[in-house]
Amino acid sequence: MGGDHGPPVVVPSLALAAQALPGVRFLLHGDEARLKPELDRHPAARAVSEVRHTDKFIASEEKPAQAMRRGKGSSLWNAVESLRDGEAQACVSAGNTGALMAISKLILRMGADLERPAIVASWPTMKGVTAVLDVGANIESDAAQLVEFAIMGAAFHHAVHGSARPTVGLLNVGSEDQKGHEEVREANRILRETPLDFDYRGFVEGTDIAYGTVDVVVTDGFTGNVALKTAEGLARFFSNEIKTTLTSSPLALLGALIASGALKKMRARLDPGRVNGGPLLGLNGIVVKSHGGADARGFASAIRVATDLARSDFTAEIDRNLKRLTAVSPIDGTPKAEAGDAAGRSPESHGAAE
Amino acid sequence: MGGDHGPPVVVPSLALAAQALPGVRFLLHGDEARLKPELDRHPAARAVSEVRHTDKFIASEEKPAQAMRRGKGSSLWNAVESLRDGEAQACVSAGNTGALMAISKLILRMGADLERPAIVASWPTMKGVTAVLDVGANIESDAAQLVEFAIMGAAFHHAVHGSARPTVGLLNVGSEDQKGHEEVREANRILRETPLDFDYRGFVEGTDIAYGTVDVVVTDGFTGNVALKTAEGLARFFSNEIKTTLTSSPLALLGALIASGALKKMRARLDPGRVNGGPLLGLNGIVVKSHGGADARGFASAIRVATDLARSDFTAEIDRNLKRLTAVSPIDGTPKAEAGDAAGRSPESHGAAE
Repeated sequence: MGGDHGPPVVVPSLALAAQALPGVRFLLHGDEARLKPELDRHPAARAVSEVRHTDKFIASEEKPAQAMRRGKGSSLWNAVESLRDGEAQACVSAGNTGALMAISKLILRMGADLERPAIVASWPTMKGVTAVLDVGANIESDAAQLVEFAIMGAAFHHAVHGSARPTVGLLNVGSEDQKGHEEVREANRILRETPLDFDYRGFVEGTDIAYGTVDVVVTDGFTGNVALKTAEGLARFFSNEIKTTLTSSPLALLGALIASGALKKMRARLDPGRVNGGPLLGLNGIVVKSHGGADARGFASAIRVATDLARSDFTAEIDRNLKRLTAVSPIDGTPKAEAGDAAGRSPESHGAAE
Repeated sequence: MGGDHGPPVVVPSLALAAQALPGVRFLLHGDEARLKPELDRHPAARAVSEVRHTDKFIASEEKPAQAMRRGKGSSLWNAVESLRDGEAQACVSAGNTGALMAISKLILRMGADLERPAIVASWPTMKGVTAVLDVGANIESDAAQLVEFAIMGAAFHHAVHGSARPTVGLLNVGSEDQKGHEEVREANRILRETPLDFDYRGFVEGTDIAYGTVDVVVTDGFTGNVALKTAEGLARFFSNEIKTTLTSSPLALLGALIASGALKKMRARLDPGRVNGGPLLGLNGIVVKSHGGADARGFASAIRVATDLARSDFTAEIDRNLKRLTAVSPIDGTPKAEAGDAAGRSPESHGAAE
């Protein structure tokens, strides 16, 4: 029921997904009266779907705390619950990001030994796709959490974007080891000292994201959210400028008409928001957020991300690396679960940002 | 002597500046043997310049601490010193940013009642130019420092970009007052409660930078540096993509040739690194950093920024607002100079980022 369009986008996307991902079946949580006509129109979607009716849903402007208190029985809530109960292996939603994060944390809880969830963005770059995380699940992150993000991000890139041994960088204001604040310097030290299933390359800078210098860029949720939205704003600015420029004179317009096919393809490639499907990593279950404005192809791409994760070795890979971490480098000698508390942070104070 | 090119770019830029800014004169600190031939080639520059010879200079890769210890007598050092001694009213350098910041802080010290310097970037947007600060002078900023950045950024936008009453926003992961970490929430409160010479608009998000929602975007130096470099990377990616796209087929190439004039103009407008001249605000004196790779026109644009600041009411405007701030809202009841120390930060630990 989520997103700007609801069933008229979600149902056709299932038909696309069914074709691309043989063997995948869907539990559709939502209003049967709105889902059924769409399913009748798309028999390929109907053939792989089962509707779980509810007429309750969470509005896009609802606050996460409100959604947690009042969301029980809503389509979003039921979808996450079906994941916890083992009826589904992954959950995809185009709904309210804050509510999805809050309800998922409440129902699924964190995966073994992980402290904090992270939202990962798949960012188009000069070389392919770079996973950037966290882009908004948290507003502050200590060294231990940044290290966890590196582990989760590498497992994600491996599972979804197919790199055999992902390269990972930590976002900073310079590349030398002594640069940056204490959290990034400590995370850098731990990642350098621990033998992990990925290739840690040290600090990277903002420019390195678009250059595709590494497969995974790790940062705190505040910085990651600002970087992602700054890039989204700039991409839209570019897109407007192209339109204005290419209609600025009859000659430019003629050139634009002739090159229009190529220009259209380029615009689709450039917006960091366009590679759809941002998983909430770190939970006991696979939850993928689709852009609210995604079309059927976009929503199908979020389904592909969820399927790739569900069919991969993702969770085992994270566990394996977490164990190496604890074996080699216990942070401050305290168990990891306490490190966050010691910094005086309560989990409740970290809202999700969309 | 600084930047990728040195005298062959700096000297011709003086000829351009002399024409655009009547009455401005220059003290050129550097190697006379390299400056003289350039001045002979550009009589318009020679007419307004005086050379102060030194054959010592700071290399681009030199660390700030090293530059402070060994920089005495270098061209950069002497330029800043001539500012302190009242021989010059502003200093422009295309040299090593970290060294420029460190030496300027050492020689000039902070302006009255200000805690920390900030580097400001003039960012092209859909509506004009937005000043973003801090983009790298600090790596962490508390609420009091963010408020100072707002005051300095507004005075800068007024002096250099001509807005009568600048609009100011605080960068965050959402627009509601309860969003974000403690530092931004506290700074938001102070800015809302104090009557200042600018129009404070509350929180803005990353997308708002390129949209030009406000004239001044305030953030800590870590986030600002990452945002600026992320945008620079994306701008370069975008520029490459245009080239690749428009040569991808004979038809696209034809379109590109026809529209090339308009496309070239657009590219020049888009790169956030192209509006040249990033002042180091907050010091007892006007110091402007030019991009190392700037050409003569770019360096002349940094000279214009320095001149606009020197000829404006900039410092008085900052003082006026700082006084209102202390009158209305003393932070934590402690004098501002101590607030930074209370957080356990030492000025030495904050390196500059380029």
